[in-house]
Amino acid sequence: MRNIKLTIEYDGKKYLGWQRLGDSDKTIQGKIETVLNQMTDETIEIVGSGRTDAGTHAYGQVANFKTESKMTVEKMQLFLNNQLPNDIVIKEIVEVPERFHARYNAKSKQYSYQVWNSEVPTALHRNHSYHYANNLDLEKINEACEFLIGEHDFIGFSSLKKTKKSTIRTITSAKIATKDEMITFTFTGEGFLYNMVRIIVGTLLEVGDGTKEVSAIEEILNQKDRQKAGHTVPAQGLFLDRVSY
Amino acid sequence: MRNIKLTIEYDGKKYLGWQRLGDSDKTIQGKIETVLNQMTDETIEIVGSGRTDAGTHAYGQVANFKTESKMTVEKMQLFLNNQLPNDIVIKEIVEVPERFHARYNAKSKQYSYQVWNSEVPTALHRNHSYHYANNLDLEKINEACEFLIGEHDFIGFSSLKKTKKSTIRTITSAKIATKDEMITFTFTGEGFLYNMVRIIVGTLLEVGDGTKEVSAIEEILNQKDRQKAGHTVPAQGLFLDRVSY
Repeated sequence: MRNIKLTIEYDGKKYLGWQRLGDSDKTIQGKIETVLNQMTDETIEIVGSGRTDAGTHAYGQVANFKTESKMTVEKMQLFLNNQLPNDIVIKEIVEVPERFHARYNAKSKQYSYQVWNSEVPTALHRNHSYHYANNLDLEKINEACEFLIGEHDFIGFSSLKKTKKSTIRTITSAKIATKDEMITFTFTGEGFLYNMVRIIVGTLLEVGDGTKEVSAIEEILNQKDRQKAGHTVPAQGLFLDRVSY
Repeated sequence: MRNIKLTIEYDGKKYLGWQRLGDSDKTIQGKIETVLNQMTDETIEIVGSGRTDAGTHAYGQVANFKTESKMTVEKMQLFLNNQLPNDIVIKEIVEVPERFHARYNAKSKQYSYQVWNSEVPTALHRNHSYHYANNLDLEKINEACEFLIGEHDFIGFSSLKKTKKSTIRTITSAKIATKDEMITFTFTGEGFLYNMVRIIVGTLLEVGDGTKEVSAIEEILNQKDRQKAGHTVPAQGLFLDRVSY
């Protein structure tokens, strides 16, 4: 069997998220599998690097699938991009060794989150950012980002209920960049818990506007208490930028 | 009468353009006037700095209107942004002298045009750019831009039929910038003819991919022949950035 790796860009606005839900036509995985089934006359199941939530976007989600098809990867890419809706694009397609697994082999992921920080909302970037009007102290946010870096139990920054699985994760980079009214938060790490990026951003915004102290980050990590963390910012500002192997 | 100046950002995707057409609810001007009528109980007519085509966007369209209303401009801005659809945003609102006229007093305008230059299309920027897959020689495009600068008869770069009005315009700046696969063309000038920016960009792309020579720009300006110029690129890549007074 050939093993094919896809790098996928998508605008999550119209979808229920990455993961196929029964026969629903409203997931990214479902859309791609439907086209792959047409293309190969097989029943293809693709393995994503991980789920993304309803409304979340990706510049570089990664997935793989096995096939007996003899089609070249160049032809597959053309077929897919012709047949997929224009809010899903196969950016890259390569053949990989049979043992490659998009989820198990993922070494790190980069997510970014866009915040439109102005009293006045944005018309042009409204679908790709979260409007947050409060004045923000970016120095404080930068300080708070430092406390996130390293290996921690991030359960306090997650929507998970108690779980037997480990909730320890490592964040290797957490930073912000600004361009006009847009603030982009970027996080790199080995993996992220459910809603972790969105709750971290909500907490950092509350640090920035003075609702919380910078030290709140350490408290939430130590006390593992979701109640102490900030709000879960909406999915439309979140992007899965890149998955590294 | 008070005279109020609006600076407006909009996503043109769903609209037939700036200018109100009868009772149609599908124009930016129409949408804003409807809300202003509710707000003031008057019949307001707003004057835009100029039209924008169906599908064209704006970061900073400018318009003005006269009113007897005693409302503060801050309250007007809140009312408008609450009532307008979220693809139209009033970014700024100020009271100006009664003689101010958004069209007659406009000294210069800046437009930009986004081209997604890659074999593979873009999912996330698809509504705000034009996908052009051919390889482009950016040096040649830069050279061609130089020929546009200055006072010229731009009728060859316009969709106008013969007209008695002057088709002489002055472009003070024409340049490109790239970020990843996105090329942004930016033009500043005293005013632009109908479709002029879109035909200039289409011509520059054809210079860039080798279909036309750099010298074609001079020929089109001299011969005033629309047939010699490039294709009219689609409206979705075009932005009215700024109007200066």
